[in-house]
Amino acid sequence: MSRREQAKEENRARIRASAERIIRTEGIDKLTMRRLAEDAGVSLRTPYNLFGSKTDVLIALLEGAGFDPGDALALRDEQLVMEQLFATLDHIEAFFDSDEKFYREVYGGIMSSAHPDVRSTNVERVVAMCQELMTHAAAKNELQIDTNTRELGRYLGVQLLAVLGMWGAEFLSNQESIRQVRRAWCGILLQHCSNASHRAVDAAYQSVALTGS
Amino acid sequence: MSRREQAKEENRARIRASAERIIRTEGIDKLTMRRLAEDAGVSLRTPYNLFGSKTDVLIALLEGAGFDPGDALALRDEQLVMEQLFATLDHIEAFFDSDEKFYREVYGGIMSSAHPDVRSTNVERVVAMCQELMTHAAAKNELQIDTNTRELGRYLGVQLLAVLGMWGAEFLSNQESIRQVRRAWCGILLQHCSNASHRAVDAAYQSVALTGS
Repeated sequence: MSRREQAKEENRARIRASAERIIRTEGIDKLTMRRLAEDAGVSLRTPYNLFGSKTDVLIALLEGAGFDPGDALALRDEQLVMEQLFATLDHIEAFFDSDEKFYREVYGGIMSSAHPDVRSTNVERVVAMCQELMTHAAAKNELQIDTNTRELGRYLGVQLLAVLGMWGAEFLSNQESIRQVRRAWCGILLQHCSNASHRAVDAAYQSVALTGS
Repeated sequence: MSRREQAKEENRARIRASAERIIRTEGIDKLTMRRLAEDAGVSLRTPYNLFGSKTDVLIALLEGAGFDPGDALALRDEQLVMEQLFATLDHIEAFFDSDEKFYREVYGGIMSSAHPDVRSTNVERVVAMCQELMTHAAAKNELQIDTNTRELGRYLGVQLLAVLGMWGAEFLSNQESIRQVRRAWCGILLQHCSNASHRAVDAAYQSVALTGS
């Protein structure tokens, strides 16, 4: 890394730390690029140059903390794709649970961002990953052969983001939102899974079954 | 109606008309209580007194246009409850479709409101209506007897609002969001419907089936 790149990296880290501090102590409403530059001791242009927008700073906060649904959704060969899909939900739940108030503010901030491009990019990214997983599931005979994997992947991705949006907007707890996603995923997957994956999908569904009053 | 009440009603109507005009011509970002009072030719206190908050004005816009999910969800005896449930989705889709851009701004404005109470009230109202419908469905033997109707109703209501939220935030078209809700509803209802309602739920599901690539 050149000296210049190193300085950039340090500034990025400093700005991320400032963002976290501002959100924790003053609340996300107080987070502006100006306040951020001030707190990090850099010029007002620096956060724009290094991140682009406040929304990008928030995304960097999640990624810096190790949250990467892309990684969680990336295909691992040793498992059923369906098992991996549901393990991703566990991963997301545990991550947000580790500091729910903070991550909820960050996530809510991203999803209600005034930069629709940034949000859309994230939505399309999650949808594309779910579609890829379903393509793999089909290749591994985990889906009935007439399944439209593209539409199914889109359904799964939209579902995840729609319900996490309710969490970000403080309508649901993290636990309830993940339970809701699991139910909505299972309901449709039970219609489309093959014999090879039925046991895994059914197990996921039984864990959130709506029985017993 | 007393003269005083009549004057109030007129002011409410004037303010609703102003809100609609401002949203249509200037965009919802320009809608403030001050701008509203100015456009309607009333004092700044009047919109607060008559509505409470900007969010309440937006809700009044939807209701004034005849949008009432409560009415759509209110039990009608002549149908299967499950048929009525899915008819509600048609109703919502047709209503928003009639003027999608406008209603999307209004709905998005309500759901991203800075008044969490108002939003929560709406969420709880929709959830309660879905729960009531499921109680009726159980009473009419449309659900398997071990179904937790309270949890099921909550699932259905949260699902509707989560996905409509994605529409309000411009991630999905109205049509796609209703299709998504129908899928998520059917997936779970297929697990819980009885023989009496299976045909209705299956028909709803077949209309949005994820088959054929």
